Amino acid sequence: MRAVCFAGDGRVEVRSVRDPHVESPTDAVVRVEVAGVCGTDLHLLHDGDDRLPAGTVLGHEFVGEVTEVGAAVTTLGVGDRVVGSDIVACGLCWWCRRGDHWECRERRFFGSGAVFGPALDGAQAEAVRVPFADVSLAALPDAIPADRAVFLADVLPTGYAAARRAGVGPGDVVVVVGGGPVGQMASLAAQTCGAAAVVVSEPIPGRRAVADRLGGIGAPPDDIERLVGELTEGRGADVVIDAVGGDAPLRAAFAAARRRGTIVSVGVPRGPEFALPVDAAFRDELTLGFVIGDPIRHRDELLALVGTDLIDPSPVVTDVVPLQQAGEAYRRAEDGSSMKLLLAGGR
Amino acid sequence: MRAVCFAGDGRVEVRSVRDPHVESPTDAVVRVEVAGVCGTDLHLLHDGDDRLPAGTVLGHEFVGEVTEVGAAVTTLGVGDRVVGSDIVACGLCWWCRRGDHWECRERRFFGSGAVFGPALDGAQAEAVRVPFADVSLAALPDAIPADRAVFLADVLPTGYAAARRAGVGPGDVVVVVGGGPVGQMASLAAQTCGAAAVVVSEPIPGRRAVADRLGGIGAPPDDIERLVGELTEGRGADVVIDAVGGDAPLRAAFAAARRRGTIVSVGVPRGPEFALPVDAAFRDELTLGFVIGDPIRHRDELLALVGTDLIDPSPVVTDVVPLQQAGEAYRRAEDGSSMKLLLAGGR
Amino acid sequence: MRAVCFAGDGRVEVRSVRDPHVESPTDAVVRVEVAGVCGTDLHLLHDGDDRLPAGTVLGHEFVGEVTEVGAAVTTLGVGDRVVGSDIVACGLCWWCRRGDHWECRERRFFGSGAVFGPALDGAQAEAVRVPFADVSLAALPDAIPADRAVFLADVLPTGYAAARRAGVGPGDVVVVVGGGPVGQMASLAAQTCGAAAVVVSEPIPGRRAVADRLGGIGAPPDDIERLVGELTEGRGADVVIDAVGGDAPLRAAFAAARRRGTIVSVGVPRGPEFALPVDAAFRDELTLGFVIGDPIRHRDELLALVGTDLIDPSPVVTDVVPLQQAGEAYRRAEDGSSMKLLLAGGR
Amino acid sequence: MRAVCFAGDGRVEVRSVRDPHVESPTDAVVRVEVAGVCGTDLHLLHDGDDRLPAGTVLGHEFVGEVTEVGAAVTTLGVGDRVVGSDIVACGLCWWCRRGDHWECRERRFFGSGAVFGPALDGAQAEAVRVPFADVSLAALPDAIPADRAVFLADVLPTGYAAARRAGVGPGDVVVVVGGGPVGQMASLAAQTCGAAAVVVSEPIPGRRAVADRLGGIGAPPDDIERLVGELTEGRGADVVIDAVGGDAPLRAAFAAARRRGTIVSVGVPRGPEFALPVDAAFRDELTLGFVIGDPIRHRDELLALVGTDLIDPSPVVTDVVPLQQAGEAYRRAEDGSSMKLLLAGGR
Repeated sequence: MRAVCFAGDGRVEVRSVRDPHVESPTDAVVRVEVAGVCGTDLHLLHDGDDRLPAGTVLGHEFVGEVTEVGAAVTTLGVGDRVVGSDIVACGLCWWCRRGDHWECRERRFFGSGAVFGPALDGAQAEAVRVPFADVSLAALPDAIPADRAVFLADVLPTGYAAARRAGVGPGDVVVVVGGGPVGQMASLAAQTCGAAAVVVSEPIPGRRAVADRLGGIGAPPDDIERLVGELTEGRGADVVIDAVGGDAPLRAAFAAARRRGTIVSVGVPRGPEFALPVDAAFRDELTLGFVIGDPIRHRDELLALVGTDLIDPSPVVTDVVPLQQAGEAYRRAEDGSSMKLLLAGGR
Repeated sequence: MRAVCFAGDGRVEVRSVRDPHVESPTDAVVRVEVAGVCGTDLHLLHDGDDRLPAGTVLGHEFVGEVTEVGAAVTTLGVGDRVVGSDIVACGLCWWCRRGDHWECRERRFFGSGAVFGPALDGAQAEAVRVPFADVSLAALPDAIPADRAVFLADVLPTGYAAARRAGVGPGDVVVVVGGGPVGQMASLAAQTCGAAAVVVSEPIPGRRAVADRLGGIGAPPDDIERLVGELTEGRGADVVIDAVGGDAPLRAAFAAARRRGTIVSVGVPRGPEFALPVDAAFRDELTLGFVIGDPIRHRDELLALVGTDLIDPSPVVTDVVPLQQAGEAYRRAEDGSSMKLLLAGGR
Repeated sequence: MRAVCFAGDGRVEVRSVRDPHVESPTDAVVRVEVAGVCGTDLHLLHDGDDRLPAGTVLGHEFVGEVTEVGAAVTTLGVGDRVVGSDIVACGLCWWCRRGDHWECRERRFFGSGAVFGPALDGAQAEAVRVPFADVSLAALPDAIPADRAVFLADVLPTGYAAARRAGVGPGDVVVVVGGGPVGQMASLAAQTCGAAAVVVSEPIPGRRAVADRLGGIGAPPDDIERLVGELTEGRGADVVIDAVGGDAPLRAAFAAARRRGTIVSVGVPRGPEFALPVDAAFRDELTLGFVIGDPIRHRDELLALVGTDLIDPSPVVTDVVPLQQAGEAYRRAEDGSSMKLLLAGGR
Repeated sequence: MRAVCFAGDGRVEVRSVRDPHVESPTDAVVRVEVAGVCGTDLHLLHDGDDRLPAGTVLGHEFVGEVTEVGAAVTTLGVGDRVVGSDIVACGLCWWCRRGDHWECRERRFFGSGAVFGPALDGAQAEAVRVPFADVSLAALPDAIPADRAVFLADVLPTGYAAARRAGVGPGDVVVVVGGGPVGQMASLAAQTCGAAAVVVSEPIPGRRAVADRLGGIGAPPDDIERLVGELTEGRGADVVIDAVGGDAPLRAAFAAARRRGTIVSVGVPRGPEFALPVDAAFRDELTLGFVIGDPIRHRDELLALVGTDLIDPSPVVTDVVPLQQAGEAYRRAEDGSSMKLLLAGGR
C-alpha cells in the first residue's frame, strides 16, 4: 500500500510499504478514510533524531473502516466505521483503570518511531494496524463526517483535557495562549464547560478570525491584559491554557491569570527547566498543571458533543489533499499558512 | 407610592401604599426599574389562604437603583444599579456560609405574606425595602439590560440550580419536563454546563418554539422517548429536570431517565406524597433531588454569563407593561398565553 | 469438586459437582481459599423462585488462587492470588467505561441462577470459573489476609458506594440505618471519607457493639434523633445511609436527615412503591439516591485502604467454617446470631 | 494591658500597651485565653524589616471570650467563647463570596505590622480587637479545650487547605515534606480525606515520633523513595505536600510524586524563582499548587472534626507558658527544640 514515510532530513515521501495485518488477537486493521497531519508530526521530522528511522510510516490521527479483526476483538467487526486514538493502551492496568492511558506500559504512539516508546506504524497510509482495538478504536456513527471525527483522535481531546484539568466551569473567563489547532480546541472545550468568555491570544490575524468564528474572542497578545481586565473587573483570567509551550507562552500565561487562578500548559516545553515565579505563585495561590490529553478517556463525551454539533472543529481545517500529495501538503503545513491539514484516503 | 397589592379572591390591584424606608442599619431601599411576575405570584393569589392578607404588596423579582442605605451597608451606595434576590438572608449563619441561604433563619421571601415565613413587602411597586442589602443585592453593570437582569432574581438561578444539582456535564443528554420560564432557564443552564442536547418536553407549540430558539429541542411529550432514544442509543436521558411539579411530570421524568441517571425536580409538588417507583429506582440506581434555587449563591457566575450574552433569557419575555396596568397583566399571565411578564418601573 | 448447592425449599447442601474449566479465552479458574455467605444468598434461597433451580452452586464472594487461564487473559497467570467481584463485566462497553459495570450487557452475577440475568456458577465451592478474568479479578498481595480481602468482593464496595454516592466529606455527621455487614461497611467507608461522626442505628446490642468497635457510634433507633441533634445543633444528619431497605428504614432515613441533606439507600426494597414525602423533600431540598455497589469500579482504592489497615472489616466476621459444614453455617446465618460467615477453602 | 511586642533586633518583650476597644460597629474585643506562637511570628521577627515597627503587638492565633461588641455585630455577644482566624475579611466581596478571604481588599493579618497589608494589633496579649467580628470569629463549644481550638486559627486550616487543594481522596498515598506543625496538620488532614498512608519526611527523630503518634509514618528523607515505592508498587506518591518551602523541599516533592501526581506547596518560598523541571512535569502531567490556608473558609468542617476528636492536634503542643514569660518562650521556639508553643491567658 501507499504510505507517508519519513525520508530523513526533515522530509516525507509517499512510498509503497507492506500491507498491515493482524499480528496479535487483539489487533484490528483499519482502511484509512482520512488522516490528519499534526504539529507533532512536524516536530518529529526535525527533532526525532535517531529514534525516528527513515522509512517510518507517520501519522496518528485517523478515521476509517475495519477490514480485519483478531480473534480476541469483541466489540468491533469488519465493516465498522471507526475513529482512532493517537495512542493504544491495554485498558486493564492500574493506569488505564484510572483513565490515564498515556501511562500504560503497553502504550504505543502511532507513527513516531521510538520517540515515545516502542514503534508502531502510523496512519497516514491506506491502512493501519491497531493493537488493543477494543480499547483504542471507537465505533463512529455515519452521521459524523470524517473531517470532524478525525479531531477526536488527538487534537480535540488534547484541548479538552486542558479545559477539564483546569476545572473550567460556568461563568469563568478563560485565556488561551495560542490560536493553533490545539488552542482552538481548548477554546471550544472551555466554552463547552461553561466559560462566560474565552479570549484567544494569537499574533496571526487569520487565526484570530478562526477563534472568533469558533465562539472565542481572538485578540493580539498585547491586547490581552486590557481585554481580560474589562471582562473581570481587573482581576485577571480565572483560567489560562497555554497551548504553545516554551518559556514565553508560559510567562504570558502567568501574566494573564488572576490570583487563585489556574494555569494549564498543554504545549511541549522547549527545555528542561522553567524559571517559575514561585514567590508570586505562592502569594497568589496559583495552580499550574501540565496535560498531554487522552483520546480514549474523553471519547464518549466528545463523541456526543461532536455528534450533536455542539462542538464542530471543522473550521480549523484549511486543506484536504489526497494521500499521494502528502509531500506537498507537509511543506504547506511547515510554512504555517495552513492550520489543519487532512489527507484523504488512499484508495 | 403605587404598588401591586393582593386584593383578595385571586385578584390584584394597583394601590397607593406607604413609601418604604430604611428600618434597620443593614437595609437599603431600591427604586424599581423593572419587576417580574412569576408563576409563584399566581400560586399565591389562589393558594395563599389566610397567610396572604389582602393589601400585601406582591413581587419578588426586581432590578432598580439604590435610593437609601442603612448605616451598616458597606458595599452599596445611593445611585447604584442593582438586581435583587427573591429572598433575603443574613449571610453569616451556618446555612448561609454553605450557600444555603433558603435555610437561613432570617430568610424572608418578598411579597408573599406569611406563606414562606415572616412577611416582607414585595417589589412590584415603585420602590422596595431590602433587608441585609449587602448580601441580598448585587451591583449590576449598566451594560446588562433590565429585561435580562431581572431573571437573575429568581427564575434563572432556579433553573440553574436544577442543572447544577443534577451534575449536568459535557456530553450529557438532558430532558427538561415543561417549557415554562423555569424549564427554559433549566434548558439554558444545562447547555451552559455542556449538555450535548437538551430536549424540552412541552405540549404547547409556542413554548416549544421558544425552546428551539433558546438552543434546546422542543418536543411534544409523546415524542420524548423516541427522540431521546435516538440521541442515546436507546439508553434514556442522563439527566431529567422536572420543571413543572406534581405526580404526572415526575412520573414522566422517571420514564425518560436512563439507568444510573439523575432526576431533579424543581417544581412545587401538588400533594404530600409521591408513589416513588422504588423497586425500579433501586434496580437502576437512580438519584432524585429536589431544588428550590438560590439567587444569592449562584449570582456571580450567572452575572458573568448574562453579562457576556452566553445566557440570554430575554426571549422568554412576552409582555412588558407599565406598573399601572398590572391588573390587566396578571389576567394575561393567568390565561397562560404569555410566558414571562415584566412590569416597567413606576416612576 | 465439592460445592454449596441450592437444594430447594430454602435449604443448601454440599454436593459433588463437575470441576470448572476455562470455556472462553477470557476465562480463568480460581481455587477458592475463602468464600463469604452474604445476605443476598439468604434472600435467594427464599425469594429466588423458579429462576433459582435446585443444584445451583451459590456464592459470589471469594478469595483464591488462579489455577487455569484462557488464551486471551493477559494480566493474570496460574498461581496468582486473587480476589473476585460479585459480578463479571466486559470492561469495554459504554457502561463499563463509565465504571457502571452493573449495567454491562455481559454482566453476570455469581451463584444466583437467573435472578440477575444469565446464570453463572457460584464461588462457595472448591473452585470457580471467572469470565472476563482480566476485568473481574484483582491480584491480591499476600499481606492481606483472606478474611479481610473477601470483603472486597461485595459487601465493602457496597457500603463504600453508598458513602461515595452520598458525597460524604470531611466534617459530615452521618447516620447509617442498620448495623448488619453492609451498614458496618458503610460506617467504615463514611469514616474514611472524613465523617466527623457516624451513628449506626441498630436495635440489636451486639451489632451496636460492633459499630462502636469499628469507630462508629452504635445507638438504638429511638435514640438517634437526640444523639444526632446533639452532634448537629439540632439540624439533623448531613447524610443518611439506609443499609436495610424497605419502607420503615427509608422513613427512618428521611426522619434523620437535615434540610438539604442526602439520603442513599443501599438496601433492597420490599415492594414496588414507596410513599415519598415529596412535599417535605421539596421544601427541604433533599437528595435521594439508590446504590447497588461495584467491586470492580472501587477496587483499587479499597485495596489500598485494606492493605494499610485503614479499613479493617474483619471484626464483622463471626464464623469461619469449613466448606463441608456450609449447611449448618447457613442455618446459623439465617437465625441472625452471626453477622458474617466465611467458608474456608475446600481443599 | 500586657502584650507581647516586637522589641526590634529579632527580640520580643512583654510590655504594657493600651487596652483595645471597639472602633468600628463590626468590631468585637476578645479577652484572650490562649494564644499560639507560630513559625510566621519567628519569620517576622527577623525578616519583617521596616514594615514591622518596634512595639507591634504580635500573634495571630487565639481563643478567648468576647468582652465587647460593636453595634453591627449580630451573631456574637459578650461572654461568648470564640476562636479567631489569623486574618479578618469583609465576608461580602467577590473574593469572600468564593471563600477566598485572603484576597479580600479589607483583609488584615493580626500582629504582623505592615508586612501583609495594613497593620492590626496581634493576639499575644490580654485582649485583642477583631474587625468584621461576625465573619472572623467563630463561636466555640465549651467542650473543645483551648489547646486544641487554637489550632483552628491558622495552622490546622493551613495543613487542611493543602490536603483539599491537592484533592486527597480515599486510598491515596501521600507524602508530607516536613514534620513541623503545618506538616503534622497536613498529615492529619490527609488522613481525614481518606489517605491510605501518609509518610512524613522529616530529619528530626522527635518530629517523626509525633508524626507516628498522629497516625502518619515518620521517616527520614533518604528513606522516602523506598518506603513510598513499597506502598505504591514503585509508582510514587499520589500527592506530595511541601510543608517547608524553598528549593530543596520543592525538589524533594517532585522526586516523590508519581506520574500524574499532584504537588502542593504550603511553605513560604525562599526566593523569587524556582527552577521548575518543566520537561518532566509535562511528560508526567503533574499538577503543582500553592496554598496559604483559610481559617474562615474551612472553619465549620474543622470545628466538627476537632469537636468529635476525629482530629486532635494537641500532641503537637510542646510548651504552654504564661503570657508574661513570652520572651523566654520565643527563645525556646527559635532554638527549634519545641514544636508548638502556647501562651496562656494574661489575666
